[in-house]
Amino acid sequence: MVTEKDVGYMRRAMSLAEKGRGHVNPNPLVGAVIVREGHVTGEGWHRRYGDLHAEREALAACTEDTHGSTMYVTLEPCCHHGKQPPCTDAIINAGIRRVVAGMTDPNPLVAGKGLALLAAHGIEVECGLLEEELRYQNRVFLRYITARRPWVTMKWAMTLDGRIAARTGDSKWVSSEESRAFAHRLRGWNMAIMAGIGTVRADDPMLNCRLDGMRSPVRVIVDSKASIALSSAIVRTAGQYRTIVAYARDENRVPGNAGDIAETGTVCGPDNARADVEGRVERLAAAGVETVGCAGKDGRVDIGDLLSQLGRMGIDSVLVEGGSELDWSIVEAGLADEVYCFIAPKIIGGSLAKGPVGGFGFDRMAEALGLEIESVTRTGPDILVHAFPCNTLSGSGKL
Amino acid sequence: MVTEKDVGYMRRAMSLAEKGRGHVNPNPLVGAVIVREGHVTGEGWHRRYGDLHAEREALAACTEDTHGSTMYVTLEPCCHHGKQPPCTDAIINAGIRRVVAGMTDPNPLVAGKGLALLAAHGIEVECGLLEEELRYQNRVFLRYITARRPWVTMKWAMTLDGRIAARTGDSKWVSSEESRAFAHRLRGWNMAIMAGIGTVRADDPMLNCRLDGMRSPVRVIVDSKASIALSSAIVRTAGQYRTIVAYARDENRVPGNAGDIAETGTVCGPDNARADVEGRVERLAAAGVETVGCAGKDGRVDIGDLLSQLGRMGIDSVLVEGGSELDWSIVEAGLADEVYCFIAPKIIGGSLAKGPVGGFGFDRMAEALGLEIESVTRTGPDILVHAFPCNTLSGSGKL
Repeated sequence: MVTEKDVGYMRRAMSLAEKGRGHVNPNPLVGAVIVREGHVTGEGWHRRYGDLHAEREALAACTEDTHGSTMYVTLEPCCHHGKQPPCTDAIINAGIRRVVAGMTDPNPLVAGKGLALLAAHGIEVECGLLEEELRYQNRVFLRYITARRPWVTMKWAMTLDGRIAARTGDSKWVSSEESRAFAHRLRGWNMAIMAGIGTVRADDPMLNCRLDGMRSPVRVIVDSKASIALSSAIVRTAGQYRTIVAYARDENRVPGNAGDIAETGTVCGPDNARADVEGRVERLAAAGVETVGCAGKDGRVDIGDLLSQLGRMGIDSVLVEGGSELDWSIVEAGLADEVYCFIAPKIIGGSLAKGPVGGFGFDRMAEALGLEIESVTRTGPDILVHAFPCNTLSGSGKL
Repeated sequence: MVTEKDVGYMRRAMSLAEKGRGHVNPNPLVGAVIVREGHVTGEGWHRRYGDLHAEREALAACTEDTHGSTMYVTLEPCCHHGKQPPCTDAIINAGIRRVVAGMTDPNPLVAGKGLALLAAHGIEVECGLLEEELRYQNRVFLRYITARRPWVTMKWAMTLDGRIAARTGDSKWVSSEESRAFAHRLRGWNMAIMAGIGTVRADDPMLNCRLDGMRSPVRVIVDSKASIALSSAIVRTAGQYRTIVAYARDENRVPGNAGDIAETGTVCGPDNARADVEGRVERLAAAGVETVGCAGKDGRVDIGDLLSQLGRMGIDSVLVEGGSELDWSIVEAGLADEVYCFIAPKIIGGSLAKGPVGGFGFDRMAEALGLEIESVTRTGPDILVHAFPCNTLSGSGKL
């Protein structure tokens, strides 16, 4: 029987879990509260990837004997050896009498086995409290652990007339200081940041997180021809911030081109270009950049393949900061999971000024990618729209 | 001495005034409340252009003797003969003891003379209550009566990625039913609606107001070459809805072109084109369309000249519904007064898909037209941003 008090403790555990955001990836956010005779005796949360799990944190923080207590934990306790020994052991050893879990862990290594183990040791077990909110909180983990690909958040800042830069390319600044500070929090929350080579060329950005106490994300540059300049800020700081350049492996290996070569009998364009790409990839590797060869699609990086590879590399979340061609390839592939759109109260005009999502575009308005708006808030003078493609959250139980 | 009660009665008068919106242009919105011994004995508002003024409406509605009463009126009573005899006469004849006016009437024919006349007749007079809000309510009138040009409201609907149509031009529909219903209210509130010939060609719209009890606006088509098709919905319904086609008077009268003609010695392009325009203007007139020749600017209608002419024609407010070239010419000329931007939660993409404000655009982000956001609300699933160019309202006392 779940009571009002149970809900309150679980809500507390959820807010503790939140403190780990940006530090525990690709682990889930987890919080735990231990209660004995109607008062809290211990609290904990998973603080950082590789550190103690929330359950052990809470047990270690306990100010009283844990025997006969109830533990509220946002996610089913683990029963397998990972970076840490199983939490189920610690709970059993501490003599916890009752465990209330927010939701089961979809990780196939756990998936109900943790709770079953506790029950087998005579612990009273309940599961499914605030589950909808907890699934929302851990949407990144849930996607990653089930699909093994990162959760993709798109972020852009545009004027009220929908431009991310002036006709000339000038974009300093579209949005306010407050918006840019929030954008840095998004960088800190995501394990990786992704940008197209066009954006790197235009702005020579660092793509790091400049907020105290937050992690900088892994930088992923989508760069079909591996043409990023060795003198760019990104490459020069590859030793400081993990950096991945994703290029198209099959670029120019198009049947038509191969035929052209055979006909003329000369070793021309394609193979030379291929050798150039390979040379650049080697030089990037020497500069400390990780390079990832991806399936090509019209000479461009196949974004689905890249995301799969990032997933296999243990990256659970990607913040995509444009430009508009990269954003389109993500929308077109149906791989957008979440959108943050900052709207600055200004009009720049210009039929040649870029919008946030370029490329070919959908043919008809009825085919547009529909979104559900989660919130509309203000960041300084700007408007911040937070949205999800329709049905994105249905799997996570929110909508 | 103004009391809390005075504020309450003035607020009531203000909300009565609001009922006239869309019906009294180019007159001001005015409401009046008559109070005697602590209770309201009469209320009125200016209902429709040409009908009784608010003061006379309130006096006519009075359920008790008016002698010794106080009248609250949002705008200084008039003292000149217009469509109606002066309100000051009626107030004096009714034996009103005290008049509280929200603000003086900036109309040079009144401008304090109305209140002075009342005071000269021994009536206690106060002025300047809720003035900031009242100036905001009557911003259209204040602009029109002082500058003799219409208040310009720009309205557009775009996707969250800033497009007003798909790459193909398809735009049915960007925004929701609720948004489109609100857009019709905007049509009803404004005396005129303005659209570019490109929009007319693309959509063949009616540009009327399809809401019960609301007036359809005068339709103004910006059409430099007077090339609107006689078979268009606009021209075919010119007998039903007042329709103005604004063309460029000086089009093709560019020195360079004239020189070309002289050199070749043939009567070619420009003069033929001029004759064509004149012929089309005549045919439009025959079809019941009013035509307005405007100063030209690079072969296009000079929007400032057009607005001045509309002001002289007694049009106090214009709702601009695009397209993006017309919107840019208004922004470029610094003639935008108010903006309603509907944002639909969808992504269409397409580097060739149109944004709401096109044209050349400003060179640098720092030169963009800055806006102050008045409100961010929801119309169905959409977001509605209501904004004013910075300083637009400073004249009206709001900001």
